[in-house]
Amino acid sequence: MSLNTFGRMFRFTTWGESHGPALGATVDGCPPGVDLDEAMLQLWLDKRRPGQNKNTTQRQEADAVRILSGVYEGQTTGTPIQLMIENTDQRSRDYGDIARTFRPGHADITYHLKYGLRDPRGGGRSSARETAARVAAGGVARAALAQLAPALEVKGYMVAMGEMKFDRTRFDWDAIDANDFWLPDAAAVADWEAYLQNVRKRHDSVGAMIEVVARGVPAGLGAPIYAKLDTDLAAAMMSINAVKGVEIGEGMAAATLGGSANADEIFMGADGPEYGSNHAGGILGGISTGQDVVVRFAVKPTSSILTPRRSITVDGAPTEVVTKGRHDPCVGIRAVPVAEAMMACVILDHLLLHRGQVGDGPRGRIG
Amino acid sequence: MSLNTFGRMFRFTTWGESHGPALGATVDGCPPGVDLDEAMLQLWLDKRRPGQNKNTTQRQEADAVRILSGVYEGQTTGTPIQLMIENTDQRSRDYGDIARTFRPGHADITYHLKYGLRDPRGGGRSSARETAARVAAGGVARAALAQLAPALEVKGYMVAMGEMKFDRTRFDWDAIDANDFWLPDAAAVADWEAYLQNVRKRHDSVGAMIEVVARGVPAGLGAPIYAKLDTDLAAAMMSINAVKGVEIGEGMAAATLGGSANADEIFMGADGPEYGSNHAGGILGGISTGQDVVVRFAVKPTSSILTPRRSITVDGAPTEVVTKGRHDPCVGIRAVPVAEAMMACVILDHLLLHRGQVGDGPRGRIG
Amino acid sequence: MSLNTFGRMFRFTTWGESHGPALGATVDGCPPGVDLDEAMLQLWLDKRRPGQNKNTTQRQEADAVRILSGVYEGQTTGTPIQLMIENTDQRSRDYGDIARTFRPGHADITYHLKYGLRDPRGGGRSSARETAARVAAGGVARAALAQLAPALEVKGYMVAMGEMKFDRTRFDWDAIDANDFWLPDAAAVADWEAYLQNVRKRHDSVGAMIEVVARGVPAGLGAPIYAKLDTDLAAAMMSINAVKGVEIGEGMAAATLGGSANADEIFMGADGPEYGSNHAGGILGGISTGQDVVVRFAVKPTSSILTPRRSITVDGAPTEVVTKGRHDPCVGIRAVPVAEAMMACVILDHLLLHRGQVGDGPRGRIG
Amino acid sequence: MSLNTFGRMFRFTTWGESHGPALGATVDGCPPGVDLDEAMLQLWLDKRRPGQNKNTTQRQEADAVRILSGVYEGQTTGTPIQLMIENTDQRSRDYGDIARTFRPGHADITYHLKYGLRDPRGGGRSSARETAARVAAGGVARAALAQLAPALEVKGYMVAMGEMKFDRTRFDWDAIDANDFWLPDAAAVADWEAYLQNVRKRHDSVGAMIEVVARGVPAGLGAPIYAKLDTDLAAAMMSINAVKGVEIGEGMAAATLGGSANADEIFMGADGPEYGSNHAGGILGGISTGQDVVVRFAVKPTSSILTPRRSITVDGAPTEVVTKGRHDPCVGIRAVPVAEAMMACVILDHLLLHRGQVGDGPRGRIG
Repeated sequence: MSLNTFGRMFRFTTWGESHGPALGATVDGCPPGVDLDEAMLQLWLDKRRPGQNKNTTQRQEADAVRILSGVYEGQTTGTPIQLMIENTDQRSRDYGDIARTFRPGHADITYHLKYGLRDPRGGGRSSARETAARVAAGGVARAALAQLAPALEVKGYMVAMGEMKFDRTRFDWDAIDANDFWLPDAAAVADWEAYLQNVRKRHDSVGAMIEVVARGVPAGLGAPIYAKLDTDLAAAMMSINAVKGVEIGEGMAAATLGGSANADEIFMGADGPEYGSNHAGGILGGISTGQDVVVRFAVKPTSSILTPRRSITVDGAPTEVVTKGRHDPCVGIRAVPVAEAMMACVILDHLLLHRGQVGDGPRGRIG
Repeated sequence: MSLNTFGRMFRFTTWGESHGPALGATVDGCPPGVDLDEAMLQLWLDKRRPGQNKNTTQRQEADAVRILSGVYEGQTTGTPIQLMIENTDQRSRDYGDIARTFRPGHADITYHLKYGLRDPRGGGRSSARETAARVAAGGVARAALAQLAPALEVKGYMVAMGEMKFDRTRFDWDAIDANDFWLPDAAAVADWEAYLQNVRKRHDSVGAMIEVVARGVPAGLGAPIYAKLDTDLAAAMMSINAVKGVEIGEGMAAATLGGSANADEIFMGADGPEYGSNHAGGILGGISTGQDVVVRFAVKPTSSILTPRRSITVDGAPTEVVTKGRHDPCVGIRAVPVAEAMMACVILDHLLLHRGQVGDGPRGRIG
Repeated sequence: MSLNTFGRMFRFTTWGESHGPALGATVDGCPPGVDLDEAMLQLWLDKRRPGQNKNTTQRQEADAVRILSGVYEGQTTGTPIQLMIENTDQRSRDYGDIARTFRPGHADITYHLKYGLRDPRGGGRSSARETAARVAAGGVARAALAQLAPALEVKGYMVAMGEMKFDRTRFDWDAIDANDFWLPDAAAVADWEAYLQNVRKRHDSVGAMIEVVARGVPAGLGAPIYAKLDTDLAAAMMSINAVKGVEIGEGMAAATLGGSANADEIFMGADGPEYGSNHAGGILGGISTGQDVVVRFAVKPTSSILTPRRSITVDGAPTEVVTKGRHDPCVGIRAVPVAEAMMACVILDHLLLHRGQVGDGPRGRIG
Repeated sequence: MSLNTFGRMFRFTTWGESHGPALGATVDGCPPGVDLDEAMLQLWLDKRRPGQNKNTTQRQEADAVRILSGVYEGQTTGTPIQLMIENTDQRSRDYGDIARTFRPGHADITYHLKYGLRDPRGGGRSSARETAARVAAGGVARAALAQLAPALEVKGYMVAMGEMKFDRTRFDWDAIDANDFWLPDAAAVADWEAYLQNVRKRHDSVGAMIEVVARGVPAGLGAPIYAKLDTDLAAAMMSINAVKGVEIGEGMAAATLGGSANADEIFMGADGPEYGSNHAGGILGGISTGQDVVVRFAVKPTSSILTPRRSITVDGAPTEVVTKGRHDPCVGIRAVPVAEAMMACVILDHLLLHRGQVGDGPRGRIG
């Protein structure tokens, strides 16, 4: 039932609100004997952390993660790992108005309708701050994968932001980590930055499209029918704040293709099957082929903008909402490390599931 | 863990292979006292059933569903409902070659790599025949919703098929059930049909895009963070065979929008909040707003085509695959009733979850 | 949430009522490549089957199990296994009175209060016939264990029936399968039989105590804190109809012991640790030690007796209930194969869980 | 799969080790709008807290619980509630010997065999300190029950300790909270205390039997077949450290009864059905009758005693173990508030489950 839990064997439950004392993730099912310390997790949290450049919110959070359980002398023990991040930048203020007004595009109104009350401070539970906890959990997954599937690499990058589209012919894997946009094309960064500053000046925000690739995924991960690898990846990405669409491989464009063009032909290579293309995004029948697993998703523009939008109060009175404060003009940028974390968690989860049901490694031989 | 189970409180487990003796769904958690008989389920199975017109496969299956448990004197008892569909059209044949060859785009190779063996008859477990069981389970969900949320209506329709796009300005809700393509524009049917016959003559197949709308969904369904309504809908649709992308509301196009354009402004209406638009697809923060819930997904072209594609055998030898037999030139058509069934199941599930945690109906008042 | 599902990785969902067309179990998560056919399951169902001797009900059910999915050419495929048992001995009769009267000690009144309606035919879902489905699922678990842990043996036997107590000093493992009471003492059988026939003649019934032992359980199965091996065994046994108490190892008697007497001292043997005693019942901290896993449980006397008991009707009117028909004077006898099946399922489940989280086999070395 | 999670709709995951920085419980699925603050939880933690009298361990822990999330302005918001208890009395010491020796009757050896490593400080995850987290979670459940089922009362008490048996004819509900043994007979306290001090002087420990009663449980809670109320209660109690047996109602004694004696006859009372007795312990067919729900369980004597016991080291060498330090001579005493907490959690969970599937309140009418 697990409202706030993600995963099947490698599971994490996130907890906490934007402006409460702390937030975190309770990670259960991690294999024992995984080398793990706080610095290994902090690395990923720092990637997601706001306030690092002018393209993201200026909220300053240390986002320092503490491991409260499940690790002994630098190794996981197989018991639950509690990851806690204290909230330090909780500006003291009056939430009276915000608490009684529903910001368009935010969860204010739905939380109110569902629960009858809500924590209005910074969006409460629906704040994107929750994603810090996932990034921490994803760090645990990465540490476990480093031991169980050392060839595996997970990388996310932006492929579109508003009208800006990434030119796929210029794809440069090494450029991704070297710019604020996680853009695989160093030459395009200046244009994207200028575009985004212009959006900000217009008191607007803009959406984005992110792609996440997992290289070195063993064949055989996933399971019929409701535990397909792509099913879990779709849920993983859609659960991220502001995501409105998820694609695997060819994605929505598959609707326009013919079967002859879409088929990934199979050849025998030196180390096993090879494929003439990867329209499938590395997944057939819900199970990994051994090719790159490719997921893409769209993030809507942040609804917190300086341009006034019409809304109502809890009394039903009309009002106008202008969201001042420290907000990302494009929340998609910070979604990149979050999506990487979710990809890592899903793959580790399915690796453990596969090992549980079938045993280690792929089972059928070819050739 | 639940590999073949979908849902949280209203749960179903599907079982069965394409050419085994039977397939079905074990439905658990249905409310008691729901009026239910086989005819009510058969209605939806007949919508999905192949062999009804020249646009779908000519395989002839009665797809007659039997209720084996959980119903007494025409009412559900609250205990598990077993729905069984016997496979009647299992053409006797030699599967020797198929059993040793991996069809490109199919799950043959991944099932082999994962499990070491597979049922090759008609795709076994990975066959789209599995979706008949979901349609039956969806019929149970519809019956329960008819009593718990009588205003609710779920409807799916095609919005694209290969190069053919639906003209949204001509949307006609009543046209949908009156043509083989579930197309909301009667005037376009002839063109779509000609296009599809041409695809078939070219020995090819084609993808499709389907939209499913739920009208009359109560506000307040869904839950943070990993049980969001849109998260579950994304998983539901992605679990359908051949689906490669899922969108909620604005979907992937949200990446290109500005925040000012994307905001759904809120007004006070006579019966509660109203919205100036529905970019959100009826869901904010994972919880329904009371607007139409709008989901869209892409189905890849069937990989079973008469055009030869290169592949390998289980011995690693090169081969060519030509799939003869009775295959849909566009599997997307039959995905429409399947997607409706999944939408109905997700909504009923969240309605029961909401009632469990919060009690009946929306909790917060406005005005 | 899984109301009618048991297990974590190896899961089964039972369905069906006593007098419906069929009942069965949907088994999910079974490893692939397990040798399995219907005869292997029938073996265990025949152990549980009523009507075989004068000590159990004379209801005649073939209890013939059919495998409808998940097995191909004699091997499991890793997909769901549907096991169906048709109900053949449904005596046609009028249920009018039974449907309106609550039998003391039965679930009639609680099903009515909970659901508002119930299937009154033979107890419906609350009938002990449901256990046939578990026995079938347990047969699948045994088949998988035969390949994954060939040294493992699961055996159940009676240790008490009413005033009759088993003399533990006469324990004879080989006697168990050779008498109708699964009694590990051939010499006592005649006395037990005479005692039970006397109970029957008095128009009464009697309770029983059963012990189930698993030998050859690998060390390391189980997990903290809510997935302890003993926690799952307690749930497994308590879920069986009429069970009112469950013990592990020393059980309730542990309350009377001192810590010095209760400690199982540890010694180093040729093949690893050995223990001076087994008060713990083979489980420490929820995890198997490698010793025999010992579970004991009590079954209440069947409430279906010829002696009149006072009750009420659905209208609240007083009435007397006399249960005629074919009922076991001691339902505990047939609980033996059911409990064995549950033990097998729990152990396989934990073996897969352990393999998933930790990998194959015990991980820590001693010596 | 949920190794460290308990519950279905009202779920909590406990985390933390005996001597780590903190431990706690992540509670998910709590209804919104429940009045809750830390003082309400502290009340129950103080009941369980060690070091309060000479009959329990002298370890001094404040066991101060903090609510880190899920509560806003004194009310639950429906989002996860993180409860954290910092460990303050972690005596600094050398764990070298303990880390390499397996204490008989403890989980040292099984954790080592399973995981290959373990946190040896105070038993790590297998320490009874984990139960503090449950008591906190149980406090949340009690707060929710106070609003949803105000007539409900949960009370635990000891019924046996070693050779001391409680005289049921002297049962005094009001005495329970007035003595250190939670004994429902004030006159017996002095004898029990003398007995226990004698056990301690003998360098031994002793087991105990505890009974927990829930009064005012609505009829209709529970569900077939694997979510029976008694099944979940058995799992709940067996998951508590050192518990070796669980009974419902008549319990193991049901094995010795005849059906005529065991039947709880039903009569029509002014407010609905009444029963002539309660052998069933308030549960029929896994569903509550509305009578008192009665659970009993046995706790083994603590294995940490001053009397030397033989064991081995991680190298397989023989050794003797004497456990010095601050240990309870009867851990059963402190199990009382833990069991009350588990009972409260199970009942709330089933109350929400029932409301989800069936709606508010019992559904069938009588009379």
